[in-house]
Amino acid sequence: MQIELVTIGTELLLGFTVDTNGAFIGQTLAGIGVRVVRRTAVGDRPDLIRAAVAEALTRTGAVLTTGGLGPTRDDMSKKVVADLFGWPLRFEQPLWDELAERWRRMGRELPAANRCQAEVPEGAMVLPNRWGTAPGLWLEGPAGLVIMLPGVPREMRKLMEHEVLPRLRARSGDRVTRSAVVRTTSIPESTLGARVGPVEDEFTPLSLAYLPSVQGVDLRLTAWDLAPEEADRLLAAAGSRLRAVVGDHAYGGGEEDLAAIVLAALRSRGWKLAVAESCTGGLLGARITAIPGSSDQFVGGAICYDDALKTALVGVGPELIARHGAVSVEVAEAMASGAAARFGAEVAVAVTGIAGPGGGSEDKPVGTVCFGWVAGTLRESARVVFPGSRQEIRDRAAQLALHRLWLMTR
Amino acid sequence: MQIELVTIGTELLLGFTVDTNGAFIGQTLAGIGVRVVRRTAVGDRPDLIRAAVAEALTRTGAVLTTGGLGPTRDDMSKKVVADLFGWPLRFEQPLWDELAERWRRMGRELPAANRCQAEVPEGAMVLPNRWGTAPGLWLEGPAGLVIMLPGVPREMRKLMEHEVLPRLRARSGDRVTRSAVVRTTSIPESTLGARVGPVEDEFTPLSLAYLPSVQGVDLRLTAWDLAPEEADRLLAAAGSRLRAVVGDHAYGGGEEDLAAIVLAALRSRGWKLAVAESCTGGLLGARITAIPGSSDQFVGGAICYDDALKTALVGVGPELIARHGAVSVEVAEAMASGAAARFGAEVAVAVTGIAGPGGGSEDKPVGTVCFGWVAGTLRESARVVFPGSRQEIRDRAAQLALHRLWLMTR
Repeated sequence: MQIELVTIGTELLLGFTVDTNGAFIGQTLAGIGVRVVRRTAVGDRPDLIRAAVAEALTRTGAVLTTGGLGPTRDDMSKKVVADLFGWPLRFEQPLWDELAERWRRMGRELPAANRCQAEVPEGAMVLPNRWGTAPGLWLEGPAGLVIMLPGVPREMRKLMEHEVLPRLRARSGDRVTRSAVVRTTSIPESTLGARVGPVEDEFTPLSLAYLPSVQGVDLRLTAWDLAPEEADRLLAAAGSRLRAVVGDHAYGGGEEDLAAIVLAALRSRGWKLAVAESCTGGLLGARITAIPGSSDQFVGGAICYDDALKTALVGVGPELIARHGAVSVEVAEAMASGAAARFGAEVAVAVTGIAGPGGGSEDKPVGTVCFGWVAGTLRESARVVFPGSRQEIRDRAAQLALHRLWLMTR
Repeated sequence: MQIELVTIGTELLLGFTVDTNGAFIGQTLAGIGVRVVRRTAVGDRPDLIRAAVAEALTRTGAVLTTGGLGPTRDDMSKKVVADLFGWPLRFEQPLWDELAERWRRMGRELPAANRCQAEVPEGAMVLPNRWGTAPGLWLEGPAGLVIMLPGVPREMRKLMEHEVLPRLRARSGDRVTRSAVVRTTSIPESTLGARVGPVEDEFTPLSLAYLPSVQGVDLRLTAWDLAPEEADRLLAAAGSRLRAVVGDHAYGGGEEDLAAIVLAALRSRGWKLAVAESCTGGLLGARITAIPGSSDQFVGGAICYDDALKTALVGVGPELIARHGAVSVEVAEAMASGAAARFGAEVAVAVTGIAGPGGGSEDKPVGTVCFGWVAGTLRESARVVFPGSRQEIRDRAAQLALHRLWLMTR
């Protein structure tokens, strides 16, 4: 089954809003075998909306619209589509009562001007919206199928999940397009390519894409137009093979954060974790504590941005700093040991570096970051020069800190 | 001048990529008086690309395409558009030499298969791409104007800035659509509306939009179809008026981070800043240190996630924690005082709370966050219950911590 997307909103065309709905809808529909073949964004004008929907119907006979259903513009896009179907709008008292009740619960009275929100094209099915005020609509007639959803991302997603997908699944093809991601880190794309390339043929008919970011390279496998069970089976097998080939650098799937994987490893050992952060300035702690339940493993740590705090908080000797500089593996090691000992943790990681844009030297250019790790009786350290902006250097440093932590504790 | 956008890429339709290019292009073009009136995304198929570009040309006579210029698909979209113009592709040796040189600098040899990248439609102008390998193209003939740019966001932006905008500015209308943002925080949208509503009429002909997020509500003023000087003058005047009406809750413009504004205030006083973070776990430190040059004002701090660290690092008495609980204004005040005193800073902020999803009680539900602030001789504290998810509660807490800091130090 093929469908077209029509996104309604002048603000979208003007770039005030980034369209995240399109990606969500494309991926979700592909997963049940419905292919989005064109996406059109038009402004809030009846003639433009009408033209876009009518053209799309001619091509595929199925259209999903988002936006243009809010109380101020409600009459417009709903009326346009109703006209296309030749269906008059009918006021629905039960829908009005429901809306009024919703407003009452928010402590407000539904304005009479919102009357149009309770108007439904005769012959259309209402998709109840429990997450907002504008309901969705399902119109199906000789003209084809038009599904109308609100543009607010949360409402659109809920309506997709609860109302649209179950109905489309029944009529979607028996072939789906699905993908799975294997996340890798601390390995250059070229090295990854050299390892994965020789086995890539085994993945046929799946396609493989390399998606680099500051956190590493995600490997995305995609099964195109296959039976759902076949797609899932091939993706699972290829994912396992990929993880085996990539080895220690493959750490998770989907959108899993490495911090969650580190915490799971620590949990299974019953170990506590502390951090000592200089150039990352709290970023590592923030990522770890973003994970619910992190307090079971994470005790906290020191943001020792100023050198005096490296001494006061984690006991780095001033003479060590004077001798090697604050950005040195010696100081990083001392920070990690100090954090583990003082904060009562079996595991600690320390990061000290030059995130830039200032502060670099020939010896220690911007991007130089030194790490110290402690895990039980293990001690490790590293010095790396990262490319990129201040934010990229900090993000890469936090990721490497977590990656080695994982290898030392899993 | 009106233009349509055609975005080429099957991956985009499948939702593997979120289209951020469209928003950037819409906003940038509106700023120079060129209005994007439709945006179409199609897959990598010659017939679909041709149809989309041809239809758009019929409607507006001007099209900007992104994507489909990479070495693997280069032949496709370039050839399609060249065909539309009736222009043959011509191999350009200088372009080839340039590409080869670029590859050499990356330590690689340009594969012969990339030959198509040096082919240019006869009559087209090459837009040199110094930020990647696929150059842009400018085709102008009886069929209309087609500007072709690569889809990689960074390359697209650079080509827009250096090659496209200067050329379009010459022919764009004398009326532009521009906007300006006044950022507000720690004030509910309804209260903001009650303050701003009565003066809103003064802003005519500008429109005003409320854009809520976890960091606060951004107020966006937009000047539609006005002469550039008139638009800028009205936006500046309305911005001042808005800031005056909103008062202390208005802190900046555009995308400025409150952390940068706090640091500027501290700088002008020559004050140092320290943090003591429990539920934010480093988030506050991370936001502060994301700002280049923050080390001049920020000394660092403590992530005292575990209660023992509240005692060890910032000297909170265990009996105080036992009496009031770790999430209490008393403990927050002690954390702030301890951080200021121990870390040698005139200014300190402490945050302790329950970010959830677990850990709430009837007395202190999830979302309860206590704050302590120290600035010179000033001492303040607060207890707030934030709505939202774990991440939202943490983000809101960091923002409130910064906002009060700013009010106490500016």
